[in-house]
Amino acid sequence: VKALVAQGGRPVYVEEYPPPEPDDGEVVIQVLRAGICATDIELLRGYMNFTGVLGHEFCGRVVAGSETLKGKRVVAEINCVCGRCDMCRSGLSSHCRDRTVLGIKGRDGAMAEHVCLPERNCHVLPDRIGDEDAVFVEPLAAAFQIAKQVPIDERTRVAVLGSGRLGLLVAQVLSGIGCQLLVVGRNPKTLEYCERWRINSRHVDDVERGRDFDVVVEATGSPAGFEIALEMIRPRGTLVLKSTTAGAEPLNLAPVVIDEIVVVGSRCGPFPDAIEALAAGRVEVSSMITKTFPLRRGQEAFEAAERPDQVKVLLDTTSP
Amino acid sequence: VKALVAQGGRPVYVEEYPPPEPDDGEVVIQVLRAGICATDIELLRGYMNFTGVLGHEFCGRVVAGSETLKGKRVVAEINCVCGRCDMCRSGLSSHCRDRTVLGIKGRDGAMAEHVCLPERNCHVLPDRIGDEDAVFVEPLAAAFQIAKQVPIDERTRVAVLGSGRLGLLVAQVLSGIGCQLLVVGRNPKTLEYCERWRINSRHVDDVERGRDFDVVVEATGSPAGFEIALEMIRPRGTLVLKSTTAGAEPLNLAPVVIDEIVVVGSRCGPFPDAIEALAAGRVEVSSMITKTFPLRRGQEAFEAAERPDQVKVLLDTTSP
Repeated sequence: VKALVAQGGRPVYVEEYPPPEPDDGEVVIQVLRAGICATDIELLRGYMNFTGVLGHEFCGRVVAGSETLKGKRVVAEINCVCGRCDMCRSGLSSHCRDRTVLGIKGRDGAMAEHVCLPERNCHVLPDRIGDEDAVFVEPLAAAFQIAKQVPIDERTRVAVLGSGRLGLLVAQVLSGIGCQLLVVGRNPKTLEYCERWRINSRHVDDVERGRDFDVVVEATGSPAGFEIALEMIRPRGTLVLKSTTAGAEPLNLAPVVIDEIVVVGSRCGPFPDAIEALAAGRVEVSSMITKTFPLRRGQEAFEAAERPDQVKVLLDTTSP
Repeated sequence: VKALVAQGGRPVYVEEYPPPEPDDGEVVIQVLRAGICATDIELLRGYMNFTGVLGHEFCGRVVAGSETLKGKRVVAEINCVCGRCDMCRSGLSSHCRDRTVLGIKGRDGAMAEHVCLPERNCHVLPDRIGDEDAVFVEPLAAAFQIAKQVPIDERTRVAVLGSGRLGLLVAQVLSGIGCQLLVVGRNPKTLEYCERWRINSRHVDDVERGRDFDVVVEATGSPAGFEIALEMIRPRGTLVLKSTTAGAEPLNLAPVVIDEIVVVGSRCGPFPDAIEALAAGRVEVSSMITKTFPLRRGQEAFEAAERPDQVKVLLDTTSP
């Protein structure tokens, strides 16, 4: 199959990649669209030492492996779990000890014509959600995870640090929940989205770092975001950490101790919440798609995704 | 007064330091004993840019400023607070925006003949607690803080990383609460304390880093402890951070995100709990005192405190 493969730190288009072989309980999905995420860019920089087909954000159509799902449009959770380890048995299967993760860890991803995943990972899409919007289900679920981990209500002062792909989804989700929200970003273009959505936003250089936010969500995708977050959060506040990067940066954790901050790592989230929000139009993602490339122009697509004038870059895996 | 002062990265004995002047509501305390803490050593390395008299762990006798307390033996909380800021008004006065902190921030410390502190900071000592043991009230309170922040019961698997001054206090407190406890240290001599107290302990090189502890308390006083802690804690576990150090070390926070770890910074704690535990003999500290020096030999005392064969080094501030 045609696929975009991580090779030597680059996304390389391969015409004849071995087609994925479904294991027991797995379905074969024809990929329709895939999205480029900050994690994909970090994978190419060495994060997780990943090799193989890239891509974990996608929408597709089931073509084999399940009579129930055959012909259906689906999105799919990315953690493929054993069901037997202590984590799986204690209800934390997304932390399965033996998991593979689509396009991230031990499993070829979705930037290809076809992908295999366990049937139980699939969620059928309502017709109202288009193929392109559906690509946002995975990162949007990750945004919904925040409210599952941290209590947030209409009095909570929340800052979202980062107005990129993920930051903008987090902003919309938290705005929907209702809280005293401020989005802090570096890129005027992406901050314009907040203005359109009537979400308070400010350039990072214009924000007073007065240690007075109850919750700060770090979604900059950069190690520097952590230190800015520490200057914005109040003592005993909660810092939600969303960014994963390949490199280690000099960091002093003393402020975490002094201010008794709670730092909460936050990864994958609930797909049903994300599907429901998109279907109901409570989150708007179409305008975030700034470019779509055919798979064979994957390298260009990644170059575009790294540019500050782009928000979400998609790959059309059906186009020649 | 005679005092031990942080000057150019060293503890310098000064014969005629200006005597402390009590503010409104403050008492003058004759210091009897003071303890050297890892924080004091970090202060000399530049932590908090501190200048002035060192020392925040002490026991003393009130000599002026309060009819109620005069002549009484006391220990005292180290945060001196405004009572008016948003933190004070919301019950988080130990995080007062305008606070000074004894021997740490904007206030001369207790390694001197006399020290001044607000009367409300003082706790009268029961006769059963000797002067030397009383020095442990402050760090012991910090150990009790952990159980105020993190739920721990008899089924919780807890690792205490670090068998130094603070680690040994944390170990005793958590052992008293009852949990599945393991102390992990580098120094065979300090690990012997655990053996004597019948607390499970192991050398750090002999510990399997299987990501299976529910709670890991990082009390090594070294930035390297954080990464070891991340290799011991289970997904969705809680890492309690106690160490404050002066320097920034390269650190990759990706494991916090991937494993959705909760990192809880933990600082000062409840004095009453510590006093009660010492009075009831539920925590044993006398054997942890490995050396006592007169104030004028303060520099030697600090040198000793940095050696691995020492646990707690005290200063006798009454001895010439």
